[in-house]
Amino acid sequence: MKKTIAHTILGMLALSLATAASAQVKPEDQIKYRQAGYRFMSWNMGKIKGNLEGSYNKDQVAAAADAIAGIANSGMGALYGPGTDKAIGSVKTRVKPEFFKEGENVGKLAREFNAATNDLAKAAAGGDAAAVKTAFGKVGESCKGCHDKYRESE
Amino acid sequence: MKKTIAHTILGMLALSLATAASAQVKPEDQIKYRQAGYRFMSWNMGKIKGNLEGSYNKDQVAAAADAIAGIANSGMGALYGPGTDKAIGSVKTRVKPEFFKEGENVGKLAREFNAATNDLAKAAAGGDAAAVKTAFGKVGESCKGCHDKYRESE
Repeated sequence: MKKTIAHTILGMLALSLATAASAQVKPEDQIKYRQAGYRFMSWNMGKIKGNLEGSYNKDQVAAAADAIAGIANSGMGALYGPGTDKAIGSVKTRVKPEFFKEGENVGKLAREFNAATNDLAKAAAGGDAAAVKTAFGKVGESCKGCHDKYRESE
Repeated sequence: MKKTIAHTILGMLALSLATAASAQVKPEDQIKYRQAGYRFMSWNMGKIKGNLEGSYNKDQVAAAADAIAGIANSGMGALYGPGTDKAIGSVKTRVKPEFFKEGENVGKLAREFNAATNDLAKAAAGGDAAAVKTAFGKVGESCKGCHDKYRESE
């Protein structure tokens, strides 16, 4: 049990740059903020997809990739604090209980996700659509890997 | 009238990197995405404020500022498309009608906001808390300038 808690804390630290400042955010607001982050990343993933499938606008792709990397690396682990594991009033969450029990794996997935978004931002800045396509695929796989394991289906 | 429309379009272009790809986003999703972007920026502004008022963690501030700049520069103007000027079902919006009529001014405010977030990201990367405080104040003023003019009070 102690080991599990230690692993969870370790994973959470790896996932975030959590500090006292973020700990003051109310649990319902933590849920709202994390959902906002994922939603905004989703919009930008959609834009990159649109560019890869249609006409490619380097500036738009680079801007979208920067937004995704900026959000991913902002320390979202701090938004999974105590009390955010289930709905609070009208604020729903699809996170599974396992997320809070498997900190080591969650931390690993989070680090891989952050690295994938950084690779995408680098590729996007370079402007090579083929490199962006590869990096974009890896970010998408990383999203899916965590969703499949730790997010309830709708 | 024609001039007003031209100004609005000009402002919108300045505000965004709008393309056909983003135009395909449903109006209700545009509202949700833009609100997600502002909400996530708000969380990160709060973190920077906490650092300026408490103990200063350079890495957390830099990460927060990067997220804000990334979101601000992602082309959010594309999320103010036709039909997004009022509530769509349960998806509410506080944007005032003037926002869609004063494109030139909106574009100016958006450019100033983006520049302020870039200055904040630069200052945060440097790690000088005094410089961050000044840049943070300017971003806050820019947020408020647009809210006062174009957002309904709650």
